[in-house]
Amino acid sequence: MNATIETILNHKSIRKFKEKKLTDQQIETLVKSAQAASTSSYIQAYSIIGVKDEQKKEQLAEIAGGQSYVANNGHFFVFCADLYRHEKIGEWESGDVIPSIESTEKFMVALIDAALAAQNAAVAAESMGLGICYIGGIRNDLYAVSELLNLPERVVPLFGLAVGYPDKETDVKPRLPYRHVYHEDSYQSQEVEMKKELDEYNEIVSSYYKERTNGKRSDSWTGQMAKMLTNRHRMYMKEFVEGKGFNKR
Amino acid sequence: MNATIETILNHKSIRKFKEKKLTDQQIETLVKSAQAASTSSYIQAYSIIGVKDEQKKEQLAEIAGGQSYVANNGHFFVFCADLYRHEKIGEWESGDVIPSIESTEKFMVALIDAALAAQNAAVAAESMGLGICYIGGIRNDLYAVSELLNLPERVVPLFGLAVGYPDKETDVKPRLPYRHVYHEDSYQSQEVEMKKELDEYNEIVSSYYKERTNGKRSDSWTGQMAKMLTNRHRMYMKEFVEGKGFNKR
Repeated sequence: MNATIETILNHKSIRKFKEKKLTDQQIETLVKSAQAASTSSYIQAYSIIGVKDEQKKEQLAEIAGGQSYVANNGHFFVFCADLYRHEKIGEWESGDVIPSIESTEKFMVALIDAALAAQNAAVAAESMGLGICYIGGIRNDLYAVSELLNLPERVVPLFGLAVGYPDKETDVKPRLPYRHVYHEDSYQSQEVEMKKELDEYNEIVSSYYKERTNGKRSDSWTGQMAKMLTNRHRMYMKEFVEGKGFNKR
Repeated sequence: MNATIETILNHKSIRKFKEKKLTDQQIETLVKSAQAASTSSYIQAYSIIGVKDEQKKEQLAEIAGGQSYVANNGHFFVFCADLYRHEKIGEWESGDVIPSIESTEKFMVALIDAALAAQNAAVAAESMGLGICYIGGIRNDLYAVSELLNLPERVVPLFGLAVGYPDKETDVKPRLPYRHVYHEDSYQSQEVEMKKELDEYNEIVSSYYKERTNGKRSDSWTGQMAKMLTNRHRMYMKEFVEGKGFNKR
């Protein structure tokens, strides 16, 4: 196993960082790593906002539900789907790009582009001995995030990425069984088989939590999922992204 | 610069592979690398289909617009947004998960999860000396792809990933100017500044193409974008993803 794969397999989210800030050169390395990712038809449909302003970081932490590591870290990035510059290009080159820009296809392209870029930054950071945590919590209120970061139309903030020097290590969290996620030639959707695999996985996840909480937390994966998904979360999202000019047709 | 960052910055899409197939162990390393990526609230909302069947690969190549490297490679993956197992979990645990599963928020989560996973697989592959190419072309006809791979409801194929031993090297393609993609504390959307940056970028991109085609191709980035976006491409996507039970509310 080479060092890169070791880094990748050793990933765990870090939720407590030392006070030390990233240097501008480290930030540049991470952003350039992000930019090196593949991009659909060269579209590069994303932007990255780095937040240094402490007050803005505090506000983002509050939006994310009071996650202190959104404010306290080495650097905080917000990855955004971005077709704003593409709209401008349409104006400059007199092309009717709006129906395309507003399509669900291009919404998907922008999300995938941004996520590929972010994961490059995440892996690059971890290879440098830094820790990372994705922050979906900023999606609690994207109206507020957009105002805070001065985002124009055609830009949708997707998630944050907190990066910094780890102050508290965590453990690698067990993933779904290999055969449950990876199918060959044809999707295997037999319910009995699926249930059996998930029952086994539940035991692994339960042990993981029990071991780490002195037996206090006994949570299964399916139980966690059912609970989370029963909760109707961020149901304003459709309206928000359409309002920003994405995912409309 | 460490080896991981070197791998990341050296990325280029490979469109011609040697005939040699990946071993099952290599495939497993790539899938496990994919699974190690961060996942929103532990949801793991994706599946990966590995295609070995030569006939299916030929059909996928045709769907992708006749891209031969979809059929001829070391291995071909299809990454899918997947909330099928989560729907089943709702049934088993008697939770009303459907409104949540059908939300735009969870559509975004599934796309981002799948893309983070894919990029881990891509970086892992490149660290092993393999080449990769993302294949958005499968989105030309996701009805056909879904049938071919036997995908149930709540599963949307997003893109392919061709992996293999490079037979023809390409060059690293120049990315958008750093300051155009990376903003600090506030999005910089001054049109004059943007135009200036893109004019400079156009010159870099034009030189890149000219050098590689003996002066035959003189294409600017903004010209390419305007042309691509004027073309209304894959406008069936909204209907397709809604039909699969995503992005509905």
